[in-house]
Amino acid sequence: MKYRKNEAKEYGRTKLKGVWTALPTNFTDDDKLDEAGTAFNLDHCIGKLRIAGHYCIGNVAEFWSMTNQERMRVHEINVDAAKGRIPIIAGCHHQNPYEVVNLCRHAWDAGVDFAIILTPYVASNSDDAVYDFYKFVADRVDIGIILFNIPQAYYPITEKLARRLATIPNVCGFKQGGPAPAATISLREAVGKDIVVSVADETPWLYNAAVMGDNWLLNFCPHLYQVPGHLPVHDYTEAVRAGDMNKAVAISRSVNPYRAVHAKWITGYGRAVGRMPVHEQKVWMELLGMVGGPVRTPCAPMTAEGREALRADLEASGLLAKLRQHAQPQPLRQVV
Amino acid sequence: MKYRKNEAKEYGRTKLKGVWTALPTNFTDDDKLDEAGTAFNLDHCIGKLRIAGHYCIGNVAEFWSMTNQERMRVHEINVDAAKGRIPIIAGCHHQNPYEVVNLCRHAWDAGVDFAIILTPYVASNSDDAVYDFYKFVADRVDIGIILFNIPQAYYPITEKLARRLATIPNVCGFKQGGPAPAATISLREAVGKDIVVSVADETPWLYNAAVMGDNWLLNFCPHLYQVPGHLPVHDYTEAVRAGDMNKAVAISRSVNPYRAVHAKWITGYGRAVGRMPVHEQKVWMELLGMVGGPVRTPCAPMTAEGREALRADLEASGLLAKLRQHAQPQPLRQVV
Amino acid sequence: MKYRKNEAKEYGRTKLKGVWTALPTNFTDDDKLDEAGTAFNLDHCIGKLRIAGHYCIGNVAEFWSMTNQERMRVHEINVDAAKGRIPIIAGCHHQNPYEVVNLCRHAWDAGVDFAIILTPYVASNSDDAVYDFYKFVADRVDIGIILFNIPQAYYPITEKLARRLATIPNVCGFKQGGPAPAATISLREAVGKDIVVSVADETPWLYNAAVMGDNWLLNFCPHLYQVPGHLPVHDYTEAVRAGDMNKAVAISRSVNPYRAVHAKWITGYGRAVGRMPVHEQKVWMELLGMVGGPVRTPCAPMTAEGREALRADLEASGLLAKLRQHAQPQPLRQVV
Amino acid sequence: MKYRKNEAKEYGRTKLKGVWTALPTNFTDDDKLDEAGTAFNLDHCIGKLRIAGHYCIGNVAEFWSMTNQERMRVHEINVDAAKGRIPIIAGCHHQNPYEVVNLCRHAWDAGVDFAIILTPYVASNSDDAVYDFYKFVADRVDIGIILFNIPQAYYPITEKLARRLATIPNVCGFKQGGPAPAATISLREAVGKDIVVSVADETPWLYNAAVMGDNWLLNFCPHLYQVPGHLPVHDYTEAVRAGDMNKAVAISRSVNPYRAVHAKWITGYGRAVGRMPVHEQKVWMELLGMVGGPVRTPCAPMTAEGREALRADLEASGLLAKLRQHAQPQPLRQVV
Repeated sequence: MKYRKNEAKEYGRTKLKGVWTALPTNFTDDDKLDEAGTAFNLDHCIGKLRIAGHYCIGNVAEFWSMTNQERMRVHEINVDAAKGRIPIIAGCHHQNPYEVVNLCRHAWDAGVDFAIILTPYVASNSDDAVYDFYKFVADRVDIGIILFNIPQAYYPITEKLARRLATIPNVCGFKQGGPAPAATISLREAVGKDIVVSVADETPWLYNAAVMGDNWLLNFCPHLYQVPGHLPVHDYTEAVRAGDMNKAVAISRSVNPYRAVHAKWITGYGRAVGRMPVHEQKVWMELLGMVGGPVRTPCAPMTAEGREALRADLEASGLLAKLRQHAQPQPLRQVV
Repeated sequence: MKYRKNEAKEYGRTKLKGVWTALPTNFTDDDKLDEAGTAFNLDHCIGKLRIAGHYCIGNVAEFWSMTNQERMRVHEINVDAAKGRIPIIAGCHHQNPYEVVNLCRHAWDAGVDFAIILTPYVASNSDDAVYDFYKFVADRVDIGIILFNIPQAYYPITEKLARRLATIPNVCGFKQGGPAPAATISLREAVGKDIVVSVADETPWLYNAAVMGDNWLLNFCPHLYQVPGHLPVHDYTEAVRAGDMNKAVAISRSVNPYRAVHAKWITGYGRAVGRMPVHEQKVWMELLGMVGGPVRTPCAPMTAEGREALRADLEASGLLAKLRQHAQPQPLRQVV
Repeated sequence: MKYRKNEAKEYGRTKLKGVWTALPTNFTDDDKLDEAGTAFNLDHCIGKLRIAGHYCIGNVAEFWSMTNQERMRVHEINVDAAKGRIPIIAGCHHQNPYEVVNLCRHAWDAGVDFAIILTPYVASNSDDAVYDFYKFVADRVDIGIILFNIPQAYYPITEKLARRLATIPNVCGFKQGGPAPAATISLREAVGKDIVVSVADETPWLYNAAVMGDNWLLNFCPHLYQVPGHLPVHDYTEAVRAGDMNKAVAISRSVNPYRAVHAKWITGYGRAVGRMPVHEQKVWMELLGMVGGPVRTPCAPMTAEGREALRADLEASGLLAKLRQHAQPQPLRQVV
Repeated sequence: MKYRKNEAKEYGRTKLKGVWTALPTNFTDDDKLDEAGTAFNLDHCIGKLRIAGHYCIGNVAEFWSMTNQERMRVHEINVDAAKGRIPIIAGCHHQNPYEVVNLCRHAWDAGVDFAIILTPYVASNSDDAVYDFYKFVADRVDIGIILFNIPQAYYPITEKLARRLATIPNVCGFKQGGPAPAATISLREAVGKDIVVSVADETPWLYNAAVMGDNWLLNFCPHLYQVPGHLPVHDYTEAVRAGDMNKAVAISRSVNPYRAVHAKWITGYGRAVGRMPVHEQKVWMELLGMVGGPVRTPCAPMTAEGREALRADLEASGLLAKLRQHAQPQPLRQVV
């Protein structure tokens, strides 16, 4: 037990900071958990990419296609692979609040630091119902809870509802998936002193850190934009902290080619493909020396043409050259 | 095994007809399954209300708050209570297609006739993704599958997508939760010869049966509008079949006071309460001599004032008088 | 002046009944108003199709592509062509409440009976704002106002807001474009004694008239489903009034082939074409001997292939045979 | 004539840059145009606040409550007040493409530099229909056109549609009202070389200018955040251009208290008031020595309590102290 339930907010303020990432779950060709691959990727992010924390079992981890047993196993793999070097958040999203409780309890018992819970996506369409859902869970678990707001897709956690939820003792963080900056300004005013707020997007992170005073980036891009020896997201974050904004801006500008590839293939404008682009991320990771592998239905695999085009775009962005430049003589993949 | 997978469509045409209902799941005061209550209600619907089939574990059954184990147990209770008198559909809705497969297989093994599956509500926002989701499940199970379209809330199954899904061998029915009549006209044209279509609303049922040629009503109202000895939905359906439209219209008109209570408390206009009104249905059922009981989070219990107001509305509608008029000397509740 | 402002509700109860239609506006090949064509069509509807009232300048009339001057001219053409035989509603929809006032005042002065006003589609996203919009207009005009609710597309007029709007002295009607039957049940309960409610859809009209007690159909289909000497919508409405439901149902069933063509080409299921299908209606009208002609941007003209396919569908439906069967020796088109 | 139609793109690249603002339209107490107030405010913005360009008749200008005649008069007032010191954009938003043409032609003849046109909000719900709407207008006018995308509220201009629209000769700019940064990255990649893109939000402007290479801010905040002698938005923009990011960040941070007041009263998080907060802007402007005055229906006036609370918030933000500090001895308002 890392902290008592009533210490969750304080623990959150201590741990929820810096540049975090969120990895996909790896699967084998016969559709089982790739435990070694999952562990390898996390070790790579900690040891080589210097990430400050990890959120497992999120949307990019295909949580909606994993059984509870598999999800619990991934909690354990994360704790084992992290070896206490960084804090871990487990995504405990589920249609059923009873199952959310089960997932949170397992995470806590396994040594995970926090649970993140998406707003309910079935049967809750009012502030009261969403509050009741979170309260039901929070009353039954000791783990610190991070709220996850994606107002474009799910019932929105407004400033008013956020205030109410922030009073729950073990609610300690807020992943803001709403992209409107003014919305987040009000949110920080409303709950930013009580719980830690992270805008879930690397793009405006320099601005949020430098101008808005944010300390925590919870996003799935850092392991896609960085390779061993070339850590621009880490570096511009450090430059902001050091007060060297010219350096920070220059480094952030150097990420633009990677952001453009990301916008094109993963979160891009007008790309209404209707599926989570998880295989795109796995292929990207393979190109950077991490473990990728297949995805599960309803995600779809990239075509051979798509894979080649993505590779060409990453080559053109300069990221693959950075990988080669910093390549170590030892093999990249080794089971931890 | 009631039929082979490749006979699902034919079996559907044989069984999917008449007035069906969908009951809530009953829970005990200590939040366990009320197995006896669940069985009692179904027996009541079959024996006293003459319903032609039952859909268990739907939205009104709080599927999103039940564990898979509980849901599977309710499959068994339904089969046991039905004693082969009527066909059963099990709601196998889940965020995870792997769990849908598990639920469908259990239903099939338990002797349930059909599985109904809601369009995926996470991670599938294209025709291809929704098709893949259903195809993934259908390929792995033998049970006949009924598609469930609620376009106001979830990814819509358009006429084009319906055509494609209807070619899957064990897809045999379509529960149309879209309220626009013209939409359903095109849907019937597109797939009505291949799979059985039901408009999920009692209100236009007379019209759909008399003018549009529908044979199947799959809705959760019949047990709320009928009491032993007073079966207006059954009776006007029979009158339509017998070609006596004046009688059918007269009986359907007599349901208007119950529909108005329903519209006010359950599906009403402008009632954006943001929760599934399941307790309202359970209280209503208690007033009619069925088993009700508590609901689970995020559903909320009615207040004492609300319960009394609902009772008064049902009294004013004349339905409670019908209940008293036809009351039997023996106690209404008896565990089956 | 047909009535005083404070008599609007009473006048509404007297006039808003029976089967109404809503005609497109006709344009010439050089994009001017086709005044003669517009008048001819209305005269045809009154004299040959026995419609009980007419709503001009609605969505099917391309109001959004007509200048105020053109719209006012069409008010005058309607009054002139009707010659007092039927009541007229003018669509006074506009983004600007000041212009709505201008349009309403002109309609009143020209002898139009009522104005219908769509919920505001810019800058009003609350009950209070929508109420203020309608109140602003109603305070400044004498004409009776019909509210128009299309909750799928615009800010919804809930039961609660409808109650509030119905207290405005010259609000006298409600065109319900929301397709959910239960919603309309509550709406009728809430305001049906004060103002006249019409469900804007021919499909459920038999049901609404027979079971729900509606007296008014305001829809754009009656002139598409009827030809001189063959008036099924009129006839089944009369049969409902006469209490002969078997006859009403039989006639309504005979409309099904036309409804299917309509569902396919105009309001159909899954047809996300993204344009108002006005040319489809004009081509259909031409096939029935009415005046059609071109449409304005952003409506698009049908292709030659589309026109032929629509003709073939109408032939297959039997409607064109009915037209030939009842054809008169004199030419159908004659300028009034 | 400032340029020929085929020079619109080049003219846009020359003029669409720097910090622009968008002023409300001022009205008198008897609901007429306050011509002097409208002119005073623009002169104040140019002479005292050093804005680089002005967009009149936008959403904050209550375009939806102004007649075409009033809008045209405001075009003229803007040209007269600007005296050629800055370029002017006229909002030519209208439900009717024919009226858009009229407004654009008047703007051109009056000497306005550009027209901005919101995506059509009635009757156009496909890429083709939206393209046809813009093409219809562009073919009929010479003025350079700026597209306005607000995907949260209206039909979205996707990257694909933007590419197509950017080929129209006199389309020269894009006001991006979509808040997702990745969307805009792809948009810049797609059309940023052909037409000038502005993210319509001051908050991320430092980031967009410093990291993303944007040159143009088109937003309605600059006159709310600046007073004579205290021009932080102007100053941090200059610091970015000068490559002094530490200074830029420090100045941008100093705007945070004003942004927080803005987020609370105007664009805030969870403030679903359902009306455009125009009076809030006018009251704010009055507090800064500009002309405010009443608003039109369906906008609503602030209460006396609200006005006092807004004043207190602006006082606490330090902005009013800046106003006093830099106040000139001569009266602030003088009719130009």
